[in-house]
Parts: sequence; C-alpha cells; structure tokens
Amino acid sequence: MISLKEIVAIIRPNKINATKKALDVLGFPGMTACKVVGRGKQKGILGEVAFTVSPELQNQEGGMKYVPKRMLSLVVNDQDVSLVVAAIIKINRTGQIGDGRIFICPVEEVVRIRTGEKGEAAI
Amino acid sequence: MISLKEIVAIIRPNKINATKKALDVLGFPGMTACKVVGRGKQKGILGEVAFTVSPELQNQEGGMKYVPKRMLSLVVNDQDVSLVVAAIIKINRTGQIGDGRIFICPVEEVVRIRTGEKGEAAI
Amino acid sequence: MISLKEIVAIIRPNKINATKKALDVLGFPGMTACKVVGRGKQKGILGEVAFTVSPELQNQEGGMKYVPKRMLSLVVNDQDVSLVVAAIIKINRTGQIGDGRIFICPVEEVVRIRTGEKGEAAI
Repeated sequence: MISLKEIVAIIRPNKINATKKALDVLGFPGMTACKVVGRGKQKGILGEVAFTVSPELQNQEGGMKYVPKRMLSLVVNDQDVSLVVAAIIKINRTGQIGDGRIFICPVEEVVRIRTGEKGEAAI
Repeated sequence: MISLKEIVAIIRPNKINATKKALDVLGFPGMTACKVVGRGKQKGILGEVAFTVSPELQNQEGGMKYVPKRMLSLVVNDQDVSLVVAAIIKINRTGQIGDGRIFICPVEEVVRIRTGEKGEAAI
Repeated sequence: MISLKEIVAIIRPNKINATKKALDVLGFPGMTACKVVGRGKQKGILGEVAFTVSPELQNQEGGMKYVPKRMLSLVVNDQDVSLVVAAIIKINRTGQIGDGRIFICPVEEVVRIRTGEKGEAAI
C-alpha cells in the first residue's frame, strides 16, 4: 500500500522559485506555498536583509526577531521522500544560518476535488 | 476511542464563503483559513482570472504560474470525515482544472485554550 | 526513540509576542508563524475589535464572521508537549471566547537544511 507524506519546507523567500523549478523538473509540479515568518534555534539572522513582507507582524507584535520565510508544502509517495528532501536541501543550502528546515508528516488521504481521485492518483 | 482528523482543503478564493456556510450548516462551524498560492499537476490554469492576492509572491519570485487559493482547515471526528469531504467536493467541484485538493491528516490532540477541554469536546 | 510532535496554536494576534517570549525562555526558540483567520464553535466574537489584518478576506468572501488570528507552529519532543501546551495556555487564556485552540500532530522527521541534521538535533 502506498503511504503518503507531506513535506513542508520553511525556506528563504529568494529560494522559492528555484525550489519549485527543481521539484517540477523532478516530477513534482503540485504544491502549495504561503508567507510565514520563522526563526530557528539561532534566534535571528546576522546580516540578513530584513526584507519585511509583513512589517506589522514583526513590529506591532514586539521585539523578537522573526525573518520572512516561505512555507512550501507538497504531498508525495513515501518512496519519493528522500529525493524531494535531497532536492530541497541542494537548492536551499547556503551554509548560512537561516537556510530553514524540512518537516515530514503523515497524510492519510488526498482527494482531487475535480475528479474525486484519491491517493497516488490525486497527488 | 475517538480519532481526530485534520481536513485541509486547498480551494478557489471565490468558493471559500460557500464552503464555510455549508460546513456550518452541517455542524462544523470551527475552522481556520489562510491565503496560499498553489498549483496542481496541470501546471497553471487556463483562462482563470489571475486574481492576484499577493502579486509580489508571484512576480518577484519568478516565472512559474501559481494561482491564489485559500487553505481551509478544520478538525473533525473520524466518523465525520466522509461527510465533510463530500460537502467540500459538492461546493467546490466546477469540473475545471484548479478545483483544488483535500488532504486528511492525523491529529493526536486538540485543546481549547479558554477551558482546557480536550479531544472531541474541543473541536 | 524520540517521537516528534508539531504543536500548532491558533491564538489572538496580540498574544503572539508574549507567547514567543515564554516559549523562548522555556527553551523553544524555533517556530514559524503566519496570519490566519479563524472561528471556533461560538461563531464570532462578541465585542472583540475586528482588527482587520486582511479585510478583503473577510468582506470580499462574504458574510460569515471570521476573526484575525495568528497560527504559531513549533516541533518538539514528545516529552516536551505538555510543558509547551501548558505555557501556551498560561499566556493565552483570557477566559473570553476567542482564546483559540492548540492542535498536536505527529511529525515523522525534521531536517535542518544548513547542516543536514535530523530528528532531535534539528529542532
């Protein structure tokens, strides 16, 4: 039985297009993206331009330093997880703090609304 | 034991209100929504008005065609999953590419902050 | 074996900074946040200022009352779930409708893009 996984990557805004292109070339064209702010263990990014997508989210809500990121989410078969993770790392690793993280989560079912297709056929 | 599921629907912006209304009528008033951009396997939407909620997300980050969507998320009991999925499909299926997808994910616990209620009582 | 959990809190916008500070002090500096709109079972907030982060999301899409919230997400070890949940409740409970909810979801793996570290080392 095919097991589905959601891969969620929190990456730099200026890396999202290259990431999408790489995943598309590898056969994973479908994905969802949104704007988030994030911070890792390092608590702020030294020297990173504070490209403020949502300044009010940063200022109005107080002092702690959060950096604009993009969240990219796609659902793949279990057997494709390592390829997708490796591709996201390849595109997004600069070696600088703030490269982001990847989360792998279980997904029980996917349904394509237009056709009702489920599972592998729907991703 | 009650098993909780998160149902995440990626749908057209102009369908979110009808979807909320239908779910409310069926007894599922609680949900969370946010703006996302998405693309399915079809790689872009023929003839769809590019209603640009976040043009900078589309332009600044490069050429690939992503379409504004809404992400709607609600947590339900296992036994309600098929009803909720059917209702979302009923409201959102136009038959055109871009109708979106539904993901069903496991949720281990839900807590209502105001009361501390957990599980079924908290959804 | 360490089991990872994602803790997702849907909270009031004016509580996010205090929540981040509390989690940081407790040793959980890494997190992701984004703007959402939400509604619980109570279907709208009596007397709450409709601080409209995204008025077009509320107006354009119709009549039902959704309230701006923040979604805060962090991944922790299983053994830290109860502490993080208790801290989020402590900061966010006002006793008024609209305090929000916390969801706990399974996460199978986390990877730090910069270093390739996985699991506990990556959170």
